[in-house]
Amino acid sequence: MALKALLLLSLLVISAGLALAKQDPELHQCKHQCKHQRQFDEQQKEECERSCEEYIREKKERERGQHERRRGEGNSREEEEEETQREENPYVFEDKHFEDRVRTEEGRVQVLEKFTKRSKLLRGIENYRVAILEANPHTFIAPAHFDAELVLFVAMGRATITMVREEKRESFNVEHGDIVRVPAGTPVYMINRDENEKLCIVKILQPVSVPGHFEAFHGAGGEDPESFYRAFSWEVLEAALKVRRDQLEKIFGEQRKGSIVKASRQQIRAMSQHEEGPPRIWPFGGESSGGPVNLFHKHPSQSNQFGRLYEAHPDDHKQLQDLDLMVSFANITKGAMSGPYYNSRATKICVVIEGEGFFEMACPHLSSSGSYQKVSGRLRRGVVFVAPAGHPVAVIASQNNNLQVLCFEVNAHGNFRFPLAGKGNIVNEFEREAKELAFNLPSREVERIFKNQEQEFFLPGPTKQQEERGRAFE
Amino acid sequence: MALKALLLLSLLVISAGLALAKQDPELHQCKHQCKHQRQFDEQQKEECERSCEEYIREKKERERGQHERRRGEGNSREEEEEETQREENPYVFEDKHFEDRVRTEEGRVQVLEKFTKRSKLLRGIENYRVAILEANPHTFIAPAHFDAELVLFVAMGRATITMVREEKRESFNVEHGDIVRVPAGTPVYMINRDENEKLCIVKILQPVSVPGHFEAFHGAGGEDPESFYRAFSWEVLEAALKVRRDQLEKIFGEQRKGSIVKASRQQIRAMSQHEEGPPRIWPFGGESSGGPVNLFHKHPSQSNQFGRLYEAHPDDHKQLQDLDLMVSFANITKGAMSGPYYNSRATKICVVIEGEGFFEMACPHLSSSGSYQKVSGRLRRGVVFVAPAGHPVAVIASQNNNLQVLCFEVNAHGNFRFPLAGKGNIVNEFEREAKELAFNLPSREVERIFKNQEQEFFLPGPTKQQEERGRAFE
Amino acid sequence: MALKALLLLSLLVISAGLALAKQDPELHQCKHQCKHQRQFDEQQKEECERSCEEYIREKKERERGQHERRRGEGNSREEEEEETQREENPYVFEDKHFEDRVRTEEGRVQVLEKFTKRSKLLRGIENYRVAILEANPHTFIAPAHFDAELVLFVAMGRATITMVREEKRESFNVEHGDIVRVPAGTPVYMINRDENEKLCIVKILQPVSVPGHFEAFHGAGGEDPESFYRAFSWEVLEAALKVRRDQLEKIFGEQRKGSIVKASRQQIRAMSQHEEGPPRIWPFGGESSGGPVNLFHKHPSQSNQFGRLYEAHPDDHKQLQDLDLMVSFANITKGAMSGPYYNSRATKICVVIEGEGFFEMACPHLSSSGSYQKVSGRLRRGVVFVAPAGHPVAVIASQNNNLQVLCFEVNAHGNFRFPLAGKGNIVNEFEREAKELAFNLPSREVERIFKNQEQEFFLPGPTKQQEERGRAFE
Repeated sequence: MALKALLLLSLLVISAGLALAKQDPELHQCKHQCKHQRQFDEQQKEECERSCEEYIREKKERERGQHERRRGEGNSREEEEEETQREENPYVFEDKHFEDRVRTEEGRVQVLEKFTKRSKLLRGIENYRVAILEANPHTFIAPAHFDAELVLFVAMGRATITMVREEKRESFNVEHGDIVRVPAGTPVYMINRDENEKLCIVKILQPVSVPGHFEAFHGAGGEDPESFYRAFSWEVLEAALKVRRDQLEKIFGEQRKGSIVKASRQQIRAMSQHEEGPPRIWPFGGESSGGPVNLFHKHPSQSNQFGRLYEAHPDDHKQLQDLDLMVSFANITKGAMSGPYYNSRATKICVVIEGEGFFEMACPHLSSSGSYQKVSGRLRRGVVFVAPAGHPVAVIASQNNNLQVLCFEVNAHGNFRFPLAGKGNIVNEFEREAKELAFNLPSREVERIFKNQEQEFFLPGPTKQQEERGRAFE
Repeated sequence: MALKALLLLSLLVISAGLALAKQDPELHQCKHQCKHQRQFDEQQKEECERSCEEYIREKKERERGQHERRRGEGNSREEEEEETQREENPYVFEDKHFEDRVRTEEGRVQVLEKFTKRSKLLRGIENYRVAILEANPHTFIAPAHFDAELVLFVAMGRATITMVREEKRESFNVEHGDIVRVPAGTPVYMINRDENEKLCIVKILQPVSVPGHFEAFHGAGGEDPESFYRAFSWEVLEAALKVRRDQLEKIFGEQRKGSIVKASRQQIRAMSQHEEGPPRIWPFGGESSGGPVNLFHKHPSQSNQFGRLYEAHPDDHKQLQDLDLMVSFANITKGAMSGPYYNSRATKICVVIEGEGFFEMACPHLSSSGSYQKVSGRLRRGVVFVAPAGHPVAVIASQNNNLQVLCFEVNAHGNFRFPLAGKGNIVNEFEREAKELAFNLPSREVERIFKNQEQEFFLPGPTKQQEERGRAFE
Repeated sequence: MALKALLLLSLLVISAGLALAKQDPELHQCKHQCKHQRQFDEQQKEECERSCEEYIREKKERERGQHERRRGEGNSREEEEEETQREENPYVFEDKHFEDRVRTEEGRVQVLEKFTKRSKLLRGIENYRVAILEANPHTFIAPAHFDAELVLFVAMGRATITMVREEKRESFNVEHGDIVRVPAGTPVYMINRDENEKLCIVKILQPVSVPGHFEAFHGAGGEDPESFYRAFSWEVLEAALKVRRDQLEKIFGEQRKGSIVKASRQQIRAMSQHEEGPPRIWPFGGESSGGPVNLFHKHPSQSNQFGRLYEAHPDDHKQLQDLDLMVSFANITKGAMSGPYYNSRATKICVVIEGEGFFEMACPHLSSSGSYQKVSGRLRRGVVFVAPAGHPVAVIASQNNNLQVLCFEVNAHGNFRFPLAGKGNIVNEFEREAKELAFNLPSREVERIFKNQEQEFFLPGPTKQQEERGRAFE
């Protein structure tokens, strides 16, 4: 069954991971030499070892470039998959690439490493960061502002989000599918107002102070979350707030439970009834005032039995306009797929919300000139992958569950999606003579291939093949 | 007295500087090893020593990140101050961080080092440079253009500034408080038209040719300032100007006194009567045509007995619009302070024009995750400090003099100032429940702290404390 | 004769090249030491040698900065020329700085190295790349899209360019002087529709995916050009296109001749009659719809017996607007020159299309503070040179042929050209007193020099001098 094929793939991924951990023999040798340099002191040895790692990493990148791909001739798909996985793939991010910024008994905030940490190929999106917040039912997420522009997507649960704007406060009750723009520096706090369901919010951040880096600034708080008020000297604080030091020590000393804490039923009830923003009936109110937009209340831009695509475009939503950011959500029916296609200008940063599957992408930058490196990766909840502008990509759902993918599309203005299969695919648009010359075949034969699939964007996936391959491993 | 406290602080700053100069023992050891590597030639030794410096610098930055701050518990403010000063603080720039670009008998131009020279934390303002021009009474500052957008602020004195625009010339008589935009590449020259007072002009530059670097291009001139005409071959110059070589040698050989020279009373009189731009009655004329704006002729945006704030916003002044730059000037009454507050989007680059005092700022980027590094610095004339977006900051004037601070606020569009104390402070805006949960205290107690101070932006400073501490050192 | 002078200059350039190839003795010694480090393995030796190269390169850059220029006093122009050439000049690019991306029997595509490869001084244009396409008569250039914004200039020949836009196709018959904008990601193919003339197209590209890097993505194609479809697994392709694997292997296996191939007369005829875009009568049709603009159908912005300048400005042509790019073409009469002048904001990237000559430029960034490095270079077909904003530059045609130079001017909005000789030169615009003070000479003498040349922009060149110097080497 397909399930077994997927299991096998997971194993391959894991063993590839182990191989990396076990360390390259050259790396081992290089580090060994560092350790035995008599003229080096401890710091220099450390420095030397770091250079080894850098060197080996770069060497591998070079090798990957020169590597003759053995694609197509006799290799089974599994072998290919393994090969790709063994190589470092800078476009896929898993659990280990996230770091906990907040972790309390009641929830956590994980931040994805900088996109450029592993490869310079993602320099174009260096100033975007992804974070995921999870909070237990009936919890309070402490007030903070960020030195970053922020867009939130409610991936699960029901929250009340409160922002302090210029001299007023706005609260919004939000739910699954809501997109909320939080301008840089805006103090924001929220509650999970649901009694049973976890809250999960995916964030994209665009730093405004240190490119590629952002921080949370907690004003309210005490020892944990530490309040930034405590960075001021007592003298300055006493004067600023016009209170005595003992009072200050008290107020900035009590909170020690972290920035996600349990809230009482009464507190939750009160705060979820404070919705004070403009009316939320889209496309009026909330929309025009910069309040939340619900992606699922919009008409899907693509829809058939194989999937559904929802898009919030910066040209339509002023909240997204200055960030030039599109937010999209694809629900790919189990066994189906989206694409292959490519974005003309926008780079997609995608987060798997639910389900399993995999994606495939063609990348010339990872490869030697004139050929395309196959990039692929297993998808499951929480995996992040990036599809840069121009790169052909297909996303395939498993046989078992729908695959739900949230994407932030950076550089969205003027972007167009070019289909590579199905209705309107680019090859079909070529003239007869161009088809002949490009493929060195009669145009009739070219059209027989490229006009066969009549679906658009969401297509039936490679079901039969998967099933057969699944059986082979039973 | 407070004066003594300030003197003490100065001493601490100086001794911290000496400590740096005296060199870190590890650095010494590392360099020593470089010198005794037999296999290295002189160049390699040099290179090696440079690596040592780099290495130690980075190590210190790491250590600072992990450093457990001992703030609050038993440490006196002086100890804290010292601690902060001893660590490198990338947000404060003093005399030693300026370099003379021009120095003649009659004046000089000092340029501040690149903001990123000491730390990558200021990468967001890497393409801004600060320079200060000082010229004696009745002097002429030679014509030049710059490969940078330029905004001038007349901090002291009276000048006539002349720009060559497309086929015409514009002259403006300017004085204290005038802001002048000089578009990139515009030939500009000026005079100090005052017979007695020095001229002091603070410049912010945004390079357009080499990011982070700018140069002056002197056309007119001879050997000093060297004319760029001399970089062309004589043959090309002879043809271009249609004159003989001996004439060229003469015209480009006479000026040897540098780019700031004495002018005669007659020359000054003639040039200061040439004002040829549109009328200077703000908000007409000068304003709409891109001419100077006087900051002090505007209504202050904040004003009380503790200080006054003047602001020229890019939304109101087209000269500042394409640079997205706000210019502000705070005159903080002696013994008072501004803030604490933070900017939501804009990063402030501030130059102390007059007076003494200090600032305090909370920085999570310098610190380990989840806490805030206290950054502080002594302020006196000529000191430059940076407050990045989102960073809470307070500026405190000494007991003796008003503190006058000129700030260039980069990334100003959509910026909002969030007060952290006094009227409209963000904590006051939270709901009752949010206050309870954030501080883990009854909301009444939170309000007792945050509603006490009724002033706005400019507040009475930590007078009493300073006086007491001053006495302690008598 | 002048021809001999030019030949001599070429020789100097070549010998300078050899000197570089023969290697610096320090570099040799440094590498030697790397090779004999017993504790280094092969990789570390390689790494070490690379560091040597880096080190020597940087050392030379430093030296160049401190180098006392011996300009003007007794040095003949040849000696100066040689001196400049021997030093590395980051502003000139020749054959060796191009790399073949495509090379078939019928044509090739050459891509210029990144501007920042040799020097960080060109960081401001790091995200622009230049490429040149050449194709034999009656050829087909295979469909591809690029992860870059693209502007094409038809430098020679007649083509039909076809782009696939959102669900439609547009074809344009273009000829010498046509500028075509190809938005990022747009599939584009073309033919050389001329039976006899070669096609030569100069491209400027602005990458949208990886800053400073772009790639061609061939969809149609087989083994050469490899199709990106082949990077997908057969299973995904079978499902996407709804066809069997054997059919896929066939269609993606036939094309092996590369991406520039011969086309039959019938194919050419058919494709050149498909012009399907809006009517091409400028300034209607083509223009307003984003179609091609012919530079030579515009009124020249400068014109006299010494040359003619054509300009397409982003403010007038929406195709160039979002790129903030001006395209200009200067035809400098033989023996004449353009400039000296400088651009206030725009940096010029120029490609010599036809003819010979040289340019001279003043650069303070290459030099020690306060003086100007003379930059110069021999110009002939295919040479690329860069004139950054603010840098005075003059371009001189040889005695034998008109010099034709195509320039892409980046950062064009608000740019103004300031003449340094002839009509409207900046020195003439100074007040009488400013002239006196700047040159330390009576203003009458200054005016005698700067008012002599009455021509504008295109001026007679240094003819006589060249001829005389030419004779000296006979």
